[in-house]
Amino acid sequence: MLSQSYSDAIWHRINQKTKPLGALGQLENIAHQLALIQSNQQGKLVSQITLNQPTVIVFAGDHGIADEGVSIAPSAVTQQMVLNFLAGGAAVNCFCRSHNVAIKVVDCGILIPVQHDSDDFIVQRLGERTHNLAKQAAMTHEQVEEGIALGRKIAKQVMDSGCNLLMFGEMGIGNTSSASAILAAITDRPVEQCVGRGTGISDEQFELKTRLVAQGVSRCNSNDVLQVLAEVGGFEIVQMVGAYLESADCQTPVLVDGFISTAAAFVATKINPTCRDYLIFAHQSHESGHKYMLEEMNAEPLLDLSLRLGEGTGAVLAVPLIQAAAEFYNTMASFEQAGVKV
Amino acid sequence: MLSQSYSDAIWHRINQKTKPLGALGQLENIAHQLALIQSNQQGKLVSQITLNQPTVIVFAGDHGIADEGVSIAPSAVTQQMVLNFLAGGAAVNCFCRSHNVAIKVVDCGILIPVQHDSDDFIVQRLGERTHNLAKQAAMTHEQVEEGIALGRKIAKQVMDSGCNLLMFGEMGIGNTSSASAILAAITDRPVEQCVGRGTGISDEQFELKTRLVAQGVSRCNSNDVLQVLAEVGGFEIVQMVGAYLESADCQTPVLVDGFISTAAAFVATKINPTCRDYLIFAHQSHESGHKYMLEEMNAEPLLDLSLRLGEGTGAVLAVPLIQAAAEFYNTMASFEQAGVKV
Repeated sequence: MLSQSYSDAIWHRINQKTKPLGALGQLENIAHQLALIQSNQQGKLVSQITLNQPTVIVFAGDHGIADEGVSIAPSAVTQQMVLNFLAGGAAVNCFCRSHNVAIKVVDCGILIPVQHDSDDFIVQRLGERTHNLAKQAAMTHEQVEEGIALGRKIAKQVMDSGCNLLMFGEMGIGNTSSASAILAAITDRPVEQCVGRGTGISDEQFELKTRLVAQGVSRCNSNDVLQVLAEVGGFEIVQMVGAYLESADCQTPVLVDGFISTAAAFVATKINPTCRDYLIFAHQSHESGHKYMLEEMNAEPLLDLSLRLGEGTGAVLAVPLIQAAAEFYNTMASFEQAGVKV
Repeated sequence: MLSQSYSDAIWHRINQKTKPLGALGQLENIAHQLALIQSNQQGKLVSQITLNQPTVIVFAGDHGIADEGVSIAPSAVTQQMVLNFLAGGAAVNCFCRSHNVAIKVVDCGILIPVQHDSDDFIVQRLGERTHNLAKQAAMTHEQVEEGIALGRKIAKQVMDSGCNLLMFGEMGIGNTSSASAILAAITDRPVEQCVGRGTGISDEQFELKTRLVAQGVSRCNSNDVLQVLAEVGGFEIVQMVGAYLESADCQTPVLVDGFISTAAAFVATKINPTCRDYLIFAHQSHESGHKYMLEEMNAEPLLDLSLRLGEGTGAVLAVPLIQAAAEFYNTMASFEQAGVKV
């Protein structure tokens, strides 16, 4: 667990700012969390929170279950969207440009590989795509272990290059089925509560999706999250799990995106509970299972804009709020400095 | 009313972007609203939303009712905070720095005037402070008219200098009493629902505040908003009303801040219903009456961070969301451009 030894001193500093106690609401909690992380890193109370090169890593992977017709689009769209990310045309690219956030795209195993020689494109494929989780284990235990190691590696590289605020986004047709199955498997919650409409499916597809996810969940052991990942995970999800684990090991905060990204974060906290201390929850997705997952982690997300897109979009949108929290911690006057007497 | 003639074409453009229909939630509504405003301005469908020099104007004024002990701080703090704004030390300054937003500070009538020769400080005082609204009319009808004219003037100046996204913040010890009274007077809602805890008062102060506000409300005519402003308004509030009216006349969107700023916006929509088309609601304040006021205007705020500070802080925090909405409208690829086939 992150040491709380600087906690009181940080609250004292926040409470001396020229505002009524608590008047900056959730931004005060964010400032406190960031200052606590960085004070622990530096071994002294920090007076300045630094945020360097915020970066979103978008993990892409395909899912065998997509062939069952549980999504609004075929697996080929995963590849088309990867190309869109690399061309700068997707929503996440737009928000990165708006908010000065760097982006990396990782092929974790998409159906049709792409050739692209950008430094921001990383190929670390675990296979062509996962097996159909409704019928068999999505991947082997070896693939889970390798995926976690690869996710750790890319996160480490990005942190080593100077980034100290990370985000993990994803793309993968069929991956809400996988995330729903993970939620149901680990929490023993009814599958019907965990499955959502994804990016917009019909009632019929929804019933099918629930039934197929339940088949996968029935093979899972809720006490063994690595087994759960092998049975119902995705290549992009296991790599994200590794990335969350590495971020915590490197004492680096991560802004958590929507349903899929939160599923990976949830698994990471089961493997290493200290991960939780480094998570900042960016937004409440429109995907119905997301709120249960957030509840499991006692999380209070910053934004609730009815987004249901993934890609890291919600996390990137929250970056300016993190910067605002750091700025008030760093430069807002105290009552004494401003000569304000209440 | 703003013409809807470009509405369908704008939705068509948004719906062709590489995302599921509606997947960007509230940001799609913002993009639509901005594109509609700018298409009407230019007399053609715009393919690019432009956002120039976002500026927050902070209106400060003092309130006679503050002497009754309904606030956590004395009127002198209004002046101290004005000096803090001018020195760059307040929360709103921090967020302006973070998000590259310009700030103007207006003395609309604070108890103790300040000398300061910044170009960003505008003195247009309607008096020393308002009368105690619990006992008599806060100001004269002439002061209401003059205040609206002065608010129009400063908003016009800022727009003429190149700003096309405005925000109106405020500072004034006692002004939640005034905003609560305005809400109760115009909507005939029970005063108990309209009065909140301001920035943090005791149960005893809360009962006193409710009783005093009710006294002011009892003199109001709900069908005459200018009379309501004279009875229970504030110097900063009447100037903000003028600023909202001028923005609509100049077809310029305004990001609405918290309880006080929303009260002024609400009054402006009663004077000119077209104002509503130019309002973007930045956040849900922690102040309890705010949600009723938002309901009255059928408003869905972007942020809900438990802020209760005013100053324009919530509005400035929402600026990056507006920029993100514009960016996706302007540069996100269409399915055709990206070769994505769903």
